[in-house]
Amino acid sequence: MTERKNLSSNKTGRKKAVVLTSGGLDSTTTLAIALSDGFECICLSFQYGQRHHVEIAAAQRVAAAMNIARHEIIPVDLGRVGGSALTADIDVPAGRDPETMAAGIPVTYVPARNTIFLSYALAWAEVLCAPDIFIGVNAVDYSGYPDCRPEYIAAFEQMANLALRDAVEGRITIRIHTPLLHMSKADIIRTGIRLGVDYGLTHSCYNPRQDGLACGVCDSCILRLNGFNEAGAADPARYVSR
Amino acid sequence: MTERKNLSSNKTGRKKAVVLTSGGLDSTTTLAIALSDGFECICLSFQYGQRHHVEIAAAQRVAAAMNIARHEIIPVDLGRVGGSALTADIDVPAGRDPETMAAGIPVTYVPARNTIFLSYALAWAEVLCAPDIFIGVNAVDYSGYPDCRPEYIAAFEQMANLALRDAVEGRITIRIHTPLLHMSKADIIRTGIRLGVDYGLTHSCYNPRQDGLACGVCDSCILRLNGFNEAGAADPARYVSR
Repeated sequence: MTERKNLSSNKTGRKKAVVLTSGGLDSTTTLAIALSDGFECICLSFQYGQRHHVEIAAAQRVAAAMNIARHEIIPVDLGRVGGSALTADIDVPAGRDPETMAAGIPVTYVPARNTIFLSYALAWAEVLCAPDIFIGVNAVDYSGYPDCRPEYIAAFEQMANLALRDAVEGRITIRIHTPLLHMSKADIIRTGIRLGVDYGLTHSCYNPRQDGLACGVCDSCILRLNGFNEAGAADPARYVSR
Repeated sequence: MTERKNLSSNKTGRKKAVVLTSGGLDSTTTLAIALSDGFECICLSFQYGQRHHVEIAAAQRVAAAMNIARHEIIPVDLGRVGGSALTADIDVPAGRDPETMAAGIPVTYVPARNTIFLSYALAWAEVLCAPDIFIGVNAVDYSGYPDCRPEYIAAFEQMANLALRDAVEGRITIRIHTPLLHMSKADIIRTGIRLGVDYGLTHSCYNPRQDGLACGVCDSCILRLNGFNEAGAADPARYVSR
C-alpha cells in the first residue's frame, strides 16, 4: 500500500475530497463550495460518449482556474450501452418550459450514470483517503432524473460504507455531499458568484454546435438561462441564437 | 428508445439476465446456474488492468462453449486507481492456508470493484430489459472481500431500484442473484459438474505464467485445488508445479 500512504499524506493539512466535475454550472459551483468548505479537491470527470463532449474541455478549464492539483479524466463507454439522448442517436428535446421538463424523466436520462460515476469515485476515495465525495445533483429545477434524488443518494452512501475495506474496518466513512440538492438554479448561480466562480468557463448545453456555441433551446440551456435571469446576472456563455 | 424495443424483444420467450463473468470457476458456475434457471444470458466481462488478464480469454472461451449470444467486454481502468495486488505493483500472497486467508481482507482486494462492475450491469440491465443480474460472489471460502457479503449485495440492490428510471417507474425490479453466496468451493464445483461445466475452460490463478499456466500457490489456486480435492474431482486446469 505504498502508493496509498504517499497519496494520503497531505502537505496542506486539509481534508481531501473527491469532486465529480463535468465542466457544467452545477458541478463547478459544487467544486467552489467544496473548496470554500476547506477541502483539498481531487476532480473526476468522465468521458462517457456524451454528445456534449466539449464539457471535458470545460472541466479542464475549470480545474485549471481553480488550481486543482489532480484532475482525473476517466473513460466510461456508455455509448455502447445507449438508451439515452445524450449517448445514442435520439433527439435532444428543444424549447420546453421548466414545468414540462419537471413532469417526467427526460430522454436525456442516461441509464445508471450517476451510479457508475459515484462507483468510480468510491475507488478513488478509498485509495486517496478522501472519503468526502461531492456531486452536484439537484432535485429542484430538474427533478426528473431518479439518480438525483435524496433517497437515491442516501441509499448509495449506505451501500458504499458496506462496500469498501477502509469503511468496513472503520478507518473512513464515505459521505456523499450534495450541497445543491435543494437549491434553485438561481440560488446555485448566486452562490457561485459569491464564491467567485467564473461561469464563462462552464458549459451546459446538451447540443452544442461544432464551434462550441450553446444552442439556447435544450433543457439544460433553458434552465441555465432562466437561472441567470432569476438571479439578476448576465450569463457569460456564448449562444447560437438569443 | 428504438434500440431498446428491439433488444427487449425475445425470440426465445425466455427472461433475460445479465451475468458478470470473469472466466473463473465461480462466475462460470453462476452462468451455468442462470442458464439452467431458464434465463437467456448476456455476459459482461471487465478488462480492469488485472494482472491475470488471461481471464478475459477464459471468459470468451466459456461464453462460446455455453452458446452465449451476447458477451460484452468492458474496459474499466482500475490500474490507474491502484491500491490492490491485482492491479498495482504489490505482491500476490502465496502458500497461505484457507484459515489465514479468511482472517482478514487480503491485498488482492480491489477498491470498489464489485460496485463498479454491478453499476455497469445496471446500465445494461435497464437498456436490455434484463433486470435479473447474476454475480458469483461467495461469502464462505473467501469471506475477506467486503463487497462479497450479503449485506452489501442487499444494499446495492436497494440502491439500484432507486437509481434506474424503469425501476422507479415500476417497469422492472432489479434483482441481484448470488447463487453461490453460501456455498463452499466444493459445493460450487459439484454443482457445476452436475450442470455440465467444463472447468478446463476456466482460469482462476491470480498470478499466471506468461504461457497461462496457473501458479498453484496463490490464494485463488489454493482455494480451487482444495475445492476440487474436497469434491473428489480432478481439476483440469494446468499448473506450473504440483
